[in-house]
Amino acid sequence: MNNPHRLIRAFLKQPVDKTPVWLMRQAGRYLPEYRQIRQQVPDFLTLCKTPELACQVSLQPLERFDLDGAIIFSDILTIPDAMGLGLHFVENEGPKFKSPIRSSRDITNLPIPDPEIELSYVCDTIRLVKKSLNNTLPVIGFSGSPWTLAAYMIEGQSSDNFILAKKMLYDNPASLHELLLKLSNAITIYLNAQIQAGVDAVMIFDTWGGLLTTSDYCDFSLSYIKQIISNINHTVPVIVFTKHGGLWLEHIATSGCDVIGLDWTISIKSAKSRVEKINTRIALQGNLDPAILLTNPDAIEKSVKTILDEFGKSPGHVFNLGHGVLQQTPVENVKTLVDCVHQMSVPYHVR
Amino acid sequence: MNNPHRLIRAFLKQPVDKTPVWLMRQAGRYLPEYRQIRQQVPDFLTLCKTPELACQVSLQPLERFDLDGAIIFSDILTIPDAMGLGLHFVENEGPKFKSPIRSSRDITNLPIPDPEIELSYVCDTIRLVKKSLNNTLPVIGFSGSPWTLAAYMIEGQSSDNFILAKKMLYDNPASLHELLLKLSNAITIYLNAQIQAGVDAVMIFDTWGGLLTTSDYCDFSLSYIKQIISNINHTVPVIVFTKHGGLWLEHIATSGCDVIGLDWTISIKSAKSRVEKINTRIALQGNLDPAILLTNPDAIEKSVKTILDEFGKSPGHVFNLGHGVLQQTPVENVKTLVDCVHQMSVPYHVR
Repeated sequence: MNNPHRLIRAFLKQPVDKTPVWLMRQAGRYLPEYRQIRQQVPDFLTLCKTPELACQVSLQPLERFDLDGAIIFSDILTIPDAMGLGLHFVENEGPKFKSPIRSSRDITNLPIPDPEIELSYVCDTIRLVKKSLNNTLPVIGFSGSPWTLAAYMIEGQSSDNFILAKKMLYDNPASLHELLLKLSNAITIYLNAQIQAGVDAVMIFDTWGGLLTTSDYCDFSLSYIKQIISNINHTVPVIVFTKHGGLWLEHIATSGCDVIGLDWTISIKSAKSRVEKINTRIALQGNLDPAILLTNPDAIEKSVKTILDEFGKSPGHVFNLGHGVLQQTPVENVKTLVDCVHQMSVPYHVR
Repeated sequence: MNNPHRLIRAFLKQPVDKTPVWLMRQAGRYLPEYRQIRQQVPDFLTLCKTPELACQVSLQPLERFDLDGAIIFSDILTIPDAMGLGLHFVENEGPKFKSPIRSSRDITNLPIPDPEIELSYVCDTIRLVKKSLNNTLPVIGFSGSPWTLAAYMIEGQSSDNFILAKKMLYDNPASLHELLLKLSNAITIYLNAQIQAGVDAVMIFDTWGGLLTTSDYCDFSLSYIKQIISNINHTVPVIVFTKHGGLWLEHIATSGCDVIGLDWTISIKSAKSRVEKINTRIALQGNLDPAILLTNPDAIEKSVKTILDEFGKSPGHVFNLGHGVLQQTPVENVKTLVDCVHQMSVPYHVR
C-alpha cells in the first residue's frame, strides 16, 4: 500500500514528486522561538519532560520551513535517565550523569524502564504532535543506540574518546555485553511504545559507534542494533545512523534497517553503490555538511545540487544533514536549503 | 640499497626479521621521567624549544622500550607559531593562538619561516638526537598537514567541528587555497630542513582531514599533501596519516607517499587489500586502538595477534597505534606491547 507521505514513501524507496527533506536537530537553539520557550523552563531536560512544550518545540520548524516531517523533541539519553542515572545538562558542557556505571553490580541493578510510566512524557509528546499535525505530516521517533547510551553511562559525560567505556570493552567485555543487552531490551520496548503512540518512522542514533574498531563496531554496536530491529514491531521504517560509519556500510546494510543515515564525510554516490550491492531495498538519508548552513545561498544551492546529482534519478533518497543543525546556523539559510531541495529535485523524479 | 634499520626497511617494503614498532606520542605525559623534565620548564612549548631537553625527552622511551625508532619531540603547530600567531598551551584545553587568521589580509601578510632561523630549535633537536643515537636507531621528523595547520590557525584553538575553518572553506575558498599553498611551501621547506638535519623518515599528520567531505578532503587537504611530497627532497620515506581517513585510502595511495598511517577504526586487512589495488609499493603503519594500552597484558597480546594476522605474511608493516599514546597509559603496558610485537611477529617473517 502506498503511504501518503513523501517522506515515508522515500524511506520505502517508492516514487515521489520531489526529494523529501528533514533535518537532524531541526527543532533547537538556532531558532529564536525555541530560545524563547527554553527560557520558560529551568533546564533543557524539563523542556523534554513537559509534553505541551516539547510538542510546541517539535512543531516550530514546521511553521517556518516546508519540511517533510517532524521529529519528536527529546534527547537520546532519556533511557539512562529513566534508569536512575541522574541525567543533567551543564551549559556548554553537554550531558552528565550523577551516578554513572562504575561496576558490574551497577549494571545488574539497572531497571528496565516502562515507557508508559517513566518515559510517558515522550509518548505524551508524540500523541500531542500527532494530534496537532492531524496526519498532514509524518512524525519520527528515536532512541540512542545501545553502544552510544552505554558509552555515556560508563563515561558519565561526553568525551573525545570515551576512555572508560573503551576500557570496559577491553577489560570486561562480558559486563559490557550485559549492559548492551539490557539497553537493547529497554530500547526495543521504548521504540515499540513510540510506534504504539503513533510515530511514522523510528531512527536509531549511533553517535559514538565511529569510535570503535571495525570488529568491535560489529560486536558491540551493530549486533545490538540488529537485535532491536528484529524485535521491534517493525510496522514503520527504521533508520540507522552511525556517525563516522562510512567504512561499515556493507555491515549496516545487513542490520534489517530500511534506511541508512549518512554523515557528510562519505560521498552519497559511493554509499549508494556500496549499499545496493548488499541490499537493494535500503534507502539513504543525508548528507549535507551542517557547516554549509553557516554560509550563503549560493554555496547551499551548489552543495544541494552536488548531492542530488550524486544520488541521481532513482527513488530512496531523503535529504538531510550529515549531523545536527549547528546552533550558530542563520534561520534564513535553513529556509534556503529546504526550498532548494524541493525545487531542484523535481527533475530527478520525472518518470 | 638495503637500509640497516628494521623500521626503514619495513617502510620501504623490504624484508625484515620481525615487525618494527614505534608509537605516536611515545615520548610524553604517560612517562614519569617526562613529567619530571616538564616540571623544569614553565610550559610545553618551552620544552619543544629547548633542544637539549627536547632531545632528552625524545630519547626517554628508547631507554625503557625496545622501540625501532625515535620521533622528534615537537608539536605539529611549530610552523604557525613561527609565522607569528602566538601559539600557547592552556592546561587541559590544548593549543591556542593569540592572533588567529581573521581575514584575507592576515593570510597575505603571513611570512614563510626559515627553518634554520625561526625553527632552528627543531633542527637542533634533530641533530642532537641523531648524534646521541649514533645511527643505532632511525629518527622520524614530522609536520602537521596544510589543512590541519590551517584549521587551527583559522579556528584559533582546537574544536569538535572547526566551524570557522569550514566557514572559510565554503564562503571564501580562494583565501583558504592561498593559505594552504603558503603552508604547503612552508612545510616543504621545513621538512627539507629536517631531512637535511638528518631524519630518516618524515610523517605528515593530517589530524583534521577526517572532518571534511570526500571531495573537500581531496581538494583542500590531500592535493596539498601531494604538492609537498612532490616538492620535497624525497630521499627518505614519507608517511601520510589522516585520522578518520579510512574511507579515502584509494585517494591517499595516489599521493606519492611511501607509507599510509591508519587509525584504529579500519581493519588493516581491508586497508591492505584496498591500497594494494592502487599501488603495491605502499607500506602500512598502524593500527592498534590506543585504549587497548589502558587494559591488561592478555588484551594487548590478543589485539597484537589480530593485527599481525590481518596483515599476514608479507613485508611492509610497521606496527603503531591508530593515534597517540593516551596520557593515562600505564608504562608497563607499553613494554608489553613492544615486546609482544617483536616476539609474536617472528613467524610472519620466516622466508
